[in-house]
Amino acid sequence: MITLNNTKYMDIKKINLDDLAKFISEIYMLKRNKREGFRLSGVDNPDSLTDHVAIAAQLAYIIGELEGLEGNKCAAIVLFHDNGEARITDQHKVAARYIDNKEAEQQAIAEQLNLLPESIKNKIANLNKEFESRSTPEGIVAKDADWLESALQAKIYSEQGYQNLENWIDNVSKALETQTAKIILEEIKKTGNFTTKWWQGLKKMTYEKIYKKS
Amino acid sequence: MITLNNTKYMDIKKINLDDLAKFISEIYMLKRNKREGFRLSGVDNPDSLTDHVAIAAQLAYIIGELEGLEGNKCAAIVLFHDNGEARITDQHKVAARYIDNKEAEQQAIAEQLNLLPESIKNKIANLNKEFESRSTPEGIVAKDADWLESALQAKIYSEQGYQNLENWIDNVSKALETQTAKIILEEIKKTGNFTTKWWQGLKKMTYEKIYKKS
Amino acid sequence: MITLNNTKYMDIKKINLDDLAKFISEIYMLKRNKREGFRLSGVDNPDSLTDHVAIAAQLAYIIGELEGLEGNKCAAIVLFHDNGEARITDQHKVAARYIDNKEAEQQAIAEQLNLLPESIKNKIANLNKEFESRSTPEGIVAKDADWLESALQAKIYSEQGYQNLENWIDNVSKALETQTAKIILEEIKKTGNFTTKWWQGLKKMTYEKIYKKS
Amino acid sequence: MITLNNTKYMDIKKINLDDLAKFISEIYMLKRNKREGFRLSGVDNPDSLTDHVAIAAQLAYIIGELEGLEGNKCAAIVLFHDNGEARITDQHKVAARYIDNKEAEQQAIAEQLNLLPESIKNKIANLNKEFESRSTPEGIVAKDADWLESALQAKIYSEQGYQNLENWIDNVSKALETQTAKIILEEIKKTGNFTTKWWQGLKKMTYEKIYKKS
Amino acid sequence: MITLNNTKYMDIKKINLDDLAKFISEIYMLKRNKREGFRLSGVDNPDSLTDHVAIAAQLAYIIGELEGLEGNKCAAIVLFHDNGEARITDQHKVAARYIDNKEAEQQAIAEQLNLLPESIKNKIANLNKEFESRSTPEGIVAKDADWLESALQAKIYSEQGYQNLENWIDNVSKALETQTAKIILEEIKKTGNFTTKWWQGLKKMTYEKIYKKS
Amino acid sequence: MITLNNTKYMDIKKINLDDLAKFISEIYMLKRNKREGFRLSGVDNPDSLTDHVAIAAQLAYIIGELEGLEGNKCAAIVLFHDNGEARITDQHKVAARYIDNKEAEQQAIAEQLNLLPESIKNKIANLNKEFESRSTPEGIVAKDADWLESALQAKIYSEQGYQNLENWIDNVSKALETQTAKIILEEIKKTGNFTTKWWQGLKKMTYEKIYKKS
Repeated sequence: MITLNNTKYMDIKKINLDDLAKFISEIYMLKRNKREGFRLSGVDNPDSLTDHVAIAAQLAYIIGELEGLEGNKCAAIVLFHDNGEARITDQHKVAARYIDNKEAEQQAIAEQLNLLPESIKNKIANLNKEFESRSTPEGIVAKDADWLESALQAKIYSEQGYQNLENWIDNVSKALETQTAKIILEEIKKTGNFTTKWWQGLKKMTYEKIYKKS
Repeated sequence: MITLNNTKYMDIKKINLDDLAKFISEIYMLKRNKREGFRLSGVDNPDSLTDHVAIAAQLAYIIGELEGLEGNKCAAIVLFHDNGEARITDQHKVAARYIDNKEAEQQAIAEQLNLLPESIKNKIANLNKEFESRSTPEGIVAKDADWLESALQAKIYSEQGYQNLENWIDNVSKALETQTAKIILEEIKKTGNFTTKWWQGLKKMTYEKIYKKS
Repeated sequence: MITLNNTKYMDIKKINLDDLAKFISEIYMLKRNKREGFRLSGVDNPDSLTDHVAIAAQLAYIIGELEGLEGNKCAAIVLFHDNGEARITDQHKVAARYIDNKEAEQQAIAEQLNLLPESIKNKIANLNKEFESRSTPEGIVAKDADWLESALQAKIYSEQGYQNLENWIDNVSKALETQTAKIILEEIKKTGNFTTKWWQGLKKMTYEKIYKKS
Repeated sequence: MITLNNTKYMDIKKINLDDLAKFISEIYMLKRNKREGFRLSGVDNPDSLTDHVAIAAQLAYIIGELEGLEGNKCAAIVLFHDNGEARITDQHKVAARYIDNKEAEQQAIAEQLNLLPESIKNKIANLNKEFESRSTPEGIVAKDADWLESALQAKIYSEQGYQNLENWIDNVSKALETQTAKIILEEIKKTGNFTTKWWQGLKKMTYEKIYKKS
Repeated sequence: MITLNNTKYMDIKKINLDDLAKFISEIYMLKRNKREGFRLSGVDNPDSLTDHVAIAAQLAYIIGELEGLEGNKCAAIVLFHDNGEARITDQHKVAARYIDNKEAEQQAIAEQLNLLPESIKNKIANLNKEFESRSTPEGIVAKDADWLESALQAKIYSEQGYQNLENWIDNVSKALETQTAKIILEEIKKTGNFTTKWWQGLKKMTYEKIYKKS
Repeated sequence: MITLNNTKYMDIKKINLDDLAKFISEIYMLKRNKREGFRLSGVDNPDSLTDHVAIAAQLAYIIGELEGLEGNKCAAIVLFHDNGEARITDQHKVAARYIDNKEAEQQAIAEQLNLLPESIKNKIANLNKEFESRSTPEGIVAKDADWLESALQAKIYSEQGYQNLENWIDNVSKALETQTAKIILEEIKKTGNFTTKWWQGLKKMTYEKIYKKS
């Protein structure tokens, strides 16, 4: 049996495995929970919270590196930032008019983290704190990435014909703090085909003509 | 205007924004690409690659920390590991019988990364290399997290009635390298209700009886 | 041009049509909003709020008539009871642990109803009040029908293999006030095939044998 | 144990519970049956019959009240009007060219209602008769609401890019009898964003700027 | 320009292209129309008519060849047999209790075929006739293949947990005429994992162990 | 017991039924596998391989007959042409840039066919050969039908608002060999409503006015 780091290794056998299994069971709920805000624009079955998180974390990495920060950490902050929504579901901006769920989300996160070993719990709690308070440059980047991902997904739905998503994009535009995220959004806002932009020129046609002049 | 890190800051205005927009456009394709292997067991519309990546990255963080490594880095390796599948789609183990796509995936990743500024490109390329070669402890953890996520999703589909997923779980069980991942999988394999385990005891009933004895 | 009731007729041309159109636009949101609680049991794309409302209103009619009340009124109470969720989305019982949304829902309903002509607004507001306070027999029936519908949909998901829905059914069982609803639930709980019970014996085979002894 | 109305109460224990359970089992089929007509315009997975019924019943209430009638009754007529389609499925207007299913629907409804206690059966049969014959003002309102709901859902699909739904809306426009329904349809036909009209101005932005001038 | 068969070639330029385009437009509707019967067993979004046709035609080819007939012709009969359902939708066996749609289907098919050039129209009309009347061995095989496909899809849904599909399989079992189809169905009925049977032993594991004894 | 062709009949009881059941189990996988290329244009849940095959086979029949060939055979070639994709999944044109899967597909097909009795295996292998090599007129027609089906489905997605599908249609336009297929595509490319073209004029309105002048 191998131990990857002999000195800092935590003995998995001494950990509360039942609690750890509960924590892991819970994060899979994020696949079933959907991005509620897109329903406002007519989307019947929007993408999942995990769809959002995976892309937002990549964006955080890139923005972070461009801003001269450590991408790994920026991405990690985003990675855990929506875990509370496993318990309280995703809240859109019309619901926000009626319910302030900030405290509830923090309480949900706190209870989730209690299922983890102390040291991991503290680290993730700190990542969450940086995200919520934006007290560190990495926290600012993470929040910008979170918003940017939403705006770009809104762009994709908008290109597909759904309504009033420019409004979403404009709100994100105002909220963004870093110049990097702002300029990326400006660049993409201008394109008419963000959905399909990436593969232009990459298709390889495989047919061969039999009758050349036909 | 704010620069988060004055010394290491990369000037977004000097970057090839068109290429960056292409890279970002491409990662959204991962939401539309699905986990093909689950179709083998009868799942008609499996979860997306981003669904998989977000959870696998969280698992990598946790396994990494338990193994005494830096969670941030383990998670970052997972975060980018499936990007090549935007171009070549997800390959299941029956397809693997006929096609060795390792090289193709590396070529796809190389071309994707060429769209990014040099320094970021090199960093992500290195993360990918650690994943593929498992030449570092973090690379080993990332691969284990990738496998573990699949096995646990297989558990969820299995609990829902889909077929022959124990076979998937057993294969992962053999492939895993770290004791941490192995024991987590053993723990969860035993449970009959991994899908719903997390919320047992958390529901708050809100009704009040009017007629106490009715 | 026809006026159906000459004496009580409200002149549609004197009504704020823009507000009325807004109200109607909003209720269509109930088709896009889903029954969030079923995600807890592993359902990825649960039925809509309107799916729930239509069946619950029929149940309210039936229970109401059995209880010696006017079915029409019982059904009408159910019909409007979830409109507030167009704005605040459906809340499940784990979320209820963290957020008390009662007041928010009432505020959302109040703002919605302000879009309607005074007399209609007051009538629907009263229906809502009877539902929330259960101060009338019809309000009690409506609430029972709302719960019963959820329990029976849970039965259907449960028969399909989803997990831990007996727990849902049991909670409804305890909450129900009317004997009628209780007994209906008891009756259906016992059946193993509630989903398909209705069409047993109704299929008409249309084939004719060509070779009688084959 | 409580009886809500001591004098008119029907003893649930004396009722044929097996038949009642069959009736209830059957109405859940309406969630699985879809609005077939929208497939003509390219919709692959249209909304359910219950989606339609819930909104049409609300519209019937509103139109009824505006026409000076009792909303409760207008809504109740709509509530049950599609039950026959549990057995014969929804028929679109191209199918209507080949099959006259009026009689079949009435026979299906009659057989369904035989599962209910006599008095409830008669009441619902009467509601159905008013709908089919439009022999009462409430029947006229109910039919108008049924049509109007379809036209407004067609508007929503049309705004999302599906084809030839104006044709649907125009046909409804000609069929409507009440001035109230006609004017509501005219009002909404003019809007370009019926899907999203309701929440304009309701979103509450929750971000706070860190760097005011950035 | 190439003509594949100089003597029998029909000049496409002399054909009514608008009518031909209509015929082709119509067959795409078969992708949007679903197998209604499976909803009876609780399936919310069943497979399409084209899903059914493609597999049934392959089965007809195989059964036909086993029965000593020309597979091509057997398959062709199945290929067109559901085209009428583009106009009248798929009818399940509960609906068949109330509506005899045989004549309607033939009328729909006749009108469709009028859009095709005379000679093709006659050929497809004859294929349809063989299917309906089972007046030829190939017609018998085609009908058996149609039924067998449904029974095997029912088996797949049944293995996934849906209800009362054995009933469907048994009815097909009685209706089948050819010994070939009967024995295939008997063989498959016995298996517990028809869904996943095909790939047993085909998966290629691609992992390599780093730490052999771990 | 009936034997449809006494002289050529193959005795089903002497056939390897387990292998035959595997072959049949495998073709049902084609329902779960999707047309991957459409994801490039933003389609989240594209149509299945069987959806494609059923329509392409009908097109092959029609093109074949118009070209003076036997429609039955042209259709049969298409019917089996995608079976290999049950094992290797559908490959789009971006993936084709990185992976040449021609050989893999032929190997997969060879292994599949080994499950069938010798004579049937040889016949289907020959149909596949004609498709791949286009060495016969029927093979040319089959390939054209395969391409044409994709282009017309692309047209339907394009009319629904998805992006960059003209590019797909143009590529097919260049690849097509037969004048018949080319002209059909040209005809349909010009229409703005290919999705709904077929039912124009076919709807039967069923309403009757009560108040003629209203």
